[in-house]
Amino acid sequence: MLNKEGHVPLYIQLKDLIQEKIESGVYAEGTAIPSERELCNMYEVSRITVRQAIERAVSEGLLVRRPGKGTYVSARKIHQPLERITSFGTTMTGQGLLAKTSVLEAQNAYAPAKVYDILQVSKNTPLVKLVLLGTANSQPLAIYTSYFRPDIGEQMADYALEWAAQGRAFSSFDLYEGMSHELRPVVARQTFEAGLASSMVARHLRLGNPAVVFVVESVAESKTGVPVEYKIAYYRADRYRFSIARKIGT
Amino acid sequence: MLNKEGHVPLYIQLKDLIQEKIESGVYAEGTAIPSERELCNMYEVSRITVRQAIERAVSEGLLVRRPGKGTYVSARKIHQPLERITSFGTTMTGQGLLAKTSVLEAQNAYAPAKVYDILQVSKNTPLVKLVLLGTANSQPLAIYTSYFRPDIGEQMADYALEWAAQGRAFSSFDLYEGMSHELRPVVARQTFEAGLASSMVARHLRLGNPAVVFVVESVAESKTGVPVEYKIAYYRADRYRFSIARKIGT
Repeated sequence: MLNKEGHVPLYIQLKDLIQEKIESGVYAEGTAIPSERELCNMYEVSRITVRQAIERAVSEGLLVRRPGKGTYVSARKIHQPLERITSFGTTMTGQGLLAKTSVLEAQNAYAPAKVYDILQVSKNTPLVKLVLLGTANSQPLAIYTSYFRPDIGEQMADYALEWAAQGRAFSSFDLYEGMSHELRPVVARQTFEAGLASSMVARHLRLGNPAVVFVVESVAESKTGVPVEYKIAYYRADRYRFSIARKIGT
Repeated sequence: MLNKEGHVPLYIQLKDLIQEKIESGVYAEGTAIPSERELCNMYEVSRITVRQAIERAVSEGLLVRRPGKGTYVSARKIHQPLERITSFGTTMTGQGLLAKTSVLEAQNAYAPAKVYDILQVSKNTPLVKLVLLGTANSQPLAIYTSYFRPDIGEQMADYALEWAAQGRAFSSFDLYEGMSHELRPVVARQTFEAGLASSMVARHLRLGNPAVVFVVESVAESKTGVPVEYKIAYYRADRYRFSIARKIGT
């Protein structure tokens, strides 16, 4: 219960209580929490206190408001450690999610100029373009567009179509698994940005407007430093959390 | 010029051209690019082609639309490698920006419950709360709220006020510099999330609505594993880009 004589503001105490109920599973992921009026009665606090507590919990990402419907417990975020890239399927299974990958596109296409520069391939050469959609529990979570070096592109597209037909969950990096090849990548140089989803990305990820996405660009390099793949990925920001331990200082 | 007989769609060619002009500085950061009509005339292409090219450049973050005003070249993003945390001042100076830190709050305060758990301090103890605002070229870029272990909090607040009075640019981690102390942190465990800015954060960062921010939580630990500081930071997503080289596979 709330301590009305304590030092901690009531709305913070109420937010902490709601958070504890979410973390202990009393309020389950994706379900509605009690209405403002119910919370007022349950905790004998004012409507203003309840609103401030909910506002705080929404800004911390614990709750989401669905206009005209109520306030719901956010879906838990998928946690990706940044130290190393692990397989898409393993990551999802590790978090209790049923994952699947679909191939939206696998064809020859012209890429933006910078992709040719990055892959060190002459412009006006078509490249193999592969667009994958990653879903978990039937919800689309991320869309990935890759361009490959010409010498591996067709092989990669074939693997993708084969794996998707088998119902597997994979990212483009997982596809190199079968390849006993000097071009198999060992490192991905990535940049992480965030922004509003474009209408195309929002449509594929079934997001409303405005929706926030992580934009992750990757260049995968073989152990001899050859860039073999350029990839741009859009992840639902409400479903992903990245973590890292960083050393402080020089 | 555009190649109307080429394989590459005209709008992609035009987008690439605009990008080259931005990268070479012909279109300078923060200035308006020519109007749609001017671009149609300059490149002898249809209005639809120009719109598609601009749409693409906006979705890639190269341009921003200011309703009723025109289309502008985005400010270059600040690049932060994730391998290691370097000083705020050095990072900004390295990118040619004039940085400054202001202290918005330095006082005793009660923290959310999870902060006490993280810092392993009993609840109902006030902690030193330090809120810093980082600016570059007079634009606010990030707001940081830190809570410290009780034994170092006052010292940290004193340093912050002193450094700010000297006009220095710093983050809370830089403040440990002077401290020859076993509690000096050597690692920060961080999570990166992204979302829409709350109205409070938007006000401090002078952002319109909707605005996207990175939300970075850090726990700084001493070399003996003692958690000395909890920090939550909000970074303007339109001004920050994080990078990392990740190993692929297990």
